[in-house]
Amino acid sequence: MNPAHPLGHAPGAPIRSGIPEHGRIPKYYAVKARISALVDELGEGQALPAERDLALRYEVARETVRQALRELLLEGRLRRQGRGTVAAGPKLEQPLSLASYTEGVRRQGRTPGRALISLDRFPCPPALAAEIGAAPGEPAWHMERVLLADEERVGLESTYVSVARVPRLDADFAPDSSFYDYLRDGLGIAFGDADERIETVLATPREALLIGTPPALPMLLIHRLSRDTAGRPLERVRTLYRGDRFSFTTRLAEGSG
Amino acid sequence: MNPAHPLGHAPGAPIRSGIPEHGRIPKYYAVKARISALVDELGEGQALPAERDLALRYEVARETVRQALRELLLEGRLRRQGRGTVAAGPKLEQPLSLASYTEGVRRQGRTPGRALISLDRFPCPPALAAEIGAAPGEPAWHMERVLLADEERVGLESTYVSVARVPRLDADFAPDSSFYDYLRDGLGIAFGDADERIETVLATPREALLIGTPPALPMLLIHRLSRDTAGRPLERVRTLYRGDRFSFTTRLAEGSG
Repeated sequence: MNPAHPLGHAPGAPIRSGIPEHGRIPKYYAVKARISALVDELGEGQALPAERDLALRYEVARETVRQALRELLLEGRLRRQGRGTVAAGPKLEQPLSLASYTEGVRRQGRTPGRALISLDRFPCPPALAAEIGAAPGEPAWHMERVLLADEERVGLESTYVSVARVPRLDADFAPDSSFYDYLRDGLGIAFGDADERIETVLATPREALLIGTPPALPMLLIHRLSRDTAGRPLERVRTLYRGDRFSFTTRLAEGSG
Repeated sequence: MNPAHPLGHAPGAPIRSGIPEHGRIPKYYAVKARISALVDELGEGQALPAERDLALRYEVARETVRQALRELLLEGRLRRQGRGTVAAGPKLEQPLSLASYTEGVRRQGRTPGRALISLDRFPCPPALAAEIGAAPGEPAWHMERVLLADEERVGLESTYVSVARVPRLDADFAPDSSFYDYLRDGLGIAFGDADERIETVLATPREALLIGTPPALPMLLIHRLSRDTAGRPLERVRTLYRGDRFSFTTRLAEGSG
């Protein structure tokens, strides 16, 4: 066999990605590759032909086209718009840094926003207490917000912080603004460092409803534990980002790990 | 309504995660939550009851149990073992650092391994040339390896590097060893820094076959561009990790972003 040029399309693209070493290319995957090439030709926001037209064009069943479209939607190559399907733009590239979500989105020329879902006080369980610098049983805040980029819902963030540290969160803080700006400008609290862990998870039904994604869309989940400049535990954050809309970037240097 | 304790189970767990704000809990999701609690009680490697027994226990259809199990498998809470299903261990936590895969896995007490899939030479296209410090058309290596942890296939790595830089890769390098050790010890090339981008993607049929995962399992994909200590472009790497088996950690500090 004469292997195809390994970088025929884009450098770094999966090599012979549709072709199992032994066996044949699944039919839906061959269609997916052709639709993907079509999406490349279309510009962002341009409409894809209807399902039945794609089925005719590629001489396959509509269910085969549907499976290909489902994966391209999950991967963020396509997005629904009204009753049609259009070519999606590139994923947002959010830097992994102490900077806030707000700042990261703004750097990419998008308008960040946040919509409050809930703000509750509850007695802090022991494990969380250690993480946010409170004593067990002391009151803690749980603030849950939907993350927006250009009015599009793109994520869901849960922040846990001690009430003793941020006593007037419910009264003073505008929940559509940056919590980090509020801590710095309102309370003189600055971030020193943080530990983050990234994984991929499936959205729960409630999360899918709040973010407006299909259920079981793969999401990127970031767990953050941050400390202030004195090294004192400050907040625990659980942020869920649409896997079809976000990627995260980082610069690594010798000794940085 | 009297909201349940928001951190009743584990701090940082999704809050009321199965419950849409308006509407009822999907039946499969209620079953998933109960099986998930059962998995917590079982130790790693312990067998889950059979599908039909779970269906009887929770008084639901077997298809409902099957949907719950499917998501728990995709999320890495369960894994197949022989013909049964067992509780999976925690995800591997791999640091985002210049250190190699080998070193990261070893730190967690696992035995790293790599199995060569292919090693090809090809003329370097322009975009890749700039990324690996070669001239367009000059020969480049593409080395593809399956990543192993304790003999389990957990990822797939494609490395692109200039042949001029690493001329005897096909003759001198043991493909089951660390490429970074080879560069350092064999050629005196050390890494200076790298840019990484992380996203979630679906495994292609070929990738799923090579890694031995179900097709369309969510994967974590890391793109790396690295430079040597003189700042000269060195390699481009595309590494796919099983999303059910890996998470990535990083320490952020002021000015690190």
